[in-house]
Amino acid sequence: MAAIGFVGFGEAGSRIAAGLRDAGVEELFAYDIHANTPGRGELIRSRAQAAKVTLVADNAELTARARVILSVVTANSALEAAGQNALYVSGAHFYADCNSVSPQTKERIAETIGRRFVEAAIMAPVPASDSHKVPMLMNGPLAPELAAILRGFGMNIQTLNLPVGAAAATKMCRSIVVKGIEAILFECVLAASRFGAADRVFASLEESDPGAHWKEKADYVVNRVVVHGERRAREMEEVVSMMRDAGIEPMMADATARRQDWAARMGLREHFGPEGPGTYAEVLAVLDKLTAAMP
Amino acid sequence: MAAIGFVGFGEAGSRIAAGLRDAGVEELFAYDIHANTPGRGELIRSRAQAAKVTLVADNAELTARARVILSVVTANSALEAAGQNALYVSGAHFYADCNSVSPQTKERIAETIGRRFVEAAIMAPVPASDSHKVPMLMNGPLAPELAAILRGFGMNIQTLNLPVGAAAATKMCRSIVVKGIEAILFECVLAASRFGAADRVFASLEESDPGAHWKEKADYVVNRVVVHGERRAREMEEVVSMMRDAGIEPMMADATARRQDWAARMGLREHFGPEGPGTYAEVLAVLDKLTAAMP
Repeated sequence: MAAIGFVGFGEAGSRIAAGLRDAGVEELFAYDIHANTPGRGELIRSRAQAAKVTLVADNAELTARARVILSVVTANSALEAAGQNALYVSGAHFYADCNSVSPQTKERIAETIGRRFVEAAIMAPVPASDSHKVPMLMNGPLAPELAAILRGFGMNIQTLNLPVGAAAATKMCRSIVVKGIEAILFECVLAASRFGAADRVFASLEESDPGAHWKEKADYVVNRVVVHGERRAREMEEVVSMMRDAGIEPMMADATARRQDWAARMGLREHFGPEGPGTYAEVLAVLDKLTAAMP
Repeated sequence: MAAIGFVGFGEAGSRIAAGLRDAGVEELFAYDIHANTPGRGELIRSRAQAAKVTLVADNAELTARARVILSVVTANSALEAAGQNALYVSGAHFYADCNSVSPQTKERIAETIGRRFVEAAIMAPVPASDSHKVPMLMNGPLAPELAAILRGFGMNIQTLNLPVGAAAATKMCRSIVVKGIEAILFECVLAASRFGAADRVFASLEESDPGAHWKEKADYVVNRVVVHGERRAREMEEVVSMMRDAGIEPMMADATARRQDWAARMGLREHFGPEGPGTYAEVLAVLDKLTAAMP
């Protein structure tokens, strides 16, 4: 049975690891550069303990103990993480970069890793349970072999055999929609609440699109932006870079990156528990306080 | 029975007039500044003929013949139209400004018209049939009286009794979502098609949100942006102005205005019949040709 190693043990990695543990994977390892950082390190260590994942000291140890390596760091660390692992990735390994980076960055990671590289993209939010069943795309000549191993544990993987970047482009273009709608709904409630119009706006949207539940969507996505705005902003910057390289002006994508980054810079997350806010109204109340406190 | 007069006889006005005609309103008048403009004038005159609406020579004649005046011009002409009518609006008239303008512009129109002003907002796309039943908000002290008259013909009107601008703010905040999603889907298909990823993107969105039919939504909204990008851009500029005045940085709203304006400036509309393109793929094919033809 394959041992699986995670480069990075944040929310995505720890959730997928926990799902794989429950699905019967016995050997799970992780290396996280922040495992001993005060605060973050505690969270990483408690997640590892909960999922019975062995935290290792470095990438050398990780690749020595696991044949399947899944990189789940943050978008702006993906290339660096690949560089740190490249030395240790042998012909027996699979190195799947699962990060939300642009096709161009995937190409650079592919060049860094060499022939054992698998391009991967996580195509939906990683759910809290059965997390390893999150839809994934894997691309490249090794994708079918790696997917066969991981499907054995219940993972939901579609494979492509296209040039490097095809999975990333799919994910990035999906994010234009998903993260863009988050930013739009956040901006809508910011404006509507200022005019006392939020209830009427949601009633009107519901009348046009019955059953779409925009108010509930707004509560959900504002939570996502508050908790993960930083990560989303970095991902959208990758989308912006991809579009510029393709000669498309990223008007909405760039605004989405800026709105998500704004939410991160406002430090909203620290005003809520680990699950984040329950409703957008809670977030607007915090914003009102922060704005009132400004000089 | 009240005679109804339209200031402006574009798509919204002519459709609502046709609906009112079918609902039994006998006296319908319209004044459109473009009624004798080559090209546009023909369309205006043929619409008027079809709905048995009498086109009058000027605002003086319009207000002389109709007691209920509905202003349905373009966002950037609304204040000017009010100024042209203000002289003729007497205590017997209702002057309902139905244009998608900012709360600040509604206030200026209210000041221009005086006490017979009714703030109105059209809260959904005006449908092709039963057009007068499109949901509307009317606001202000005269709103209940005017709404009672118009409901008599089947119009779907909710009234508010709030300061001028409340109906406009509701419509504008709704537009942040509706026009923003249009711009996002257009930008998504621009990018996804460049990478041959559109089918995979829509499949992934459908897997996350079954029954949302994003591909069909993309076809629909790209049509809307191509046919009405100009009008939508001007409306979103009003939204931007409203948000700036309220101290909210209009990141997504401004990007939406620019993406809609881009579609208008590309002149996409002239490549299709009056109904516009059937699918986004047709629009991308035209864009490819236009780009290839650039020096």
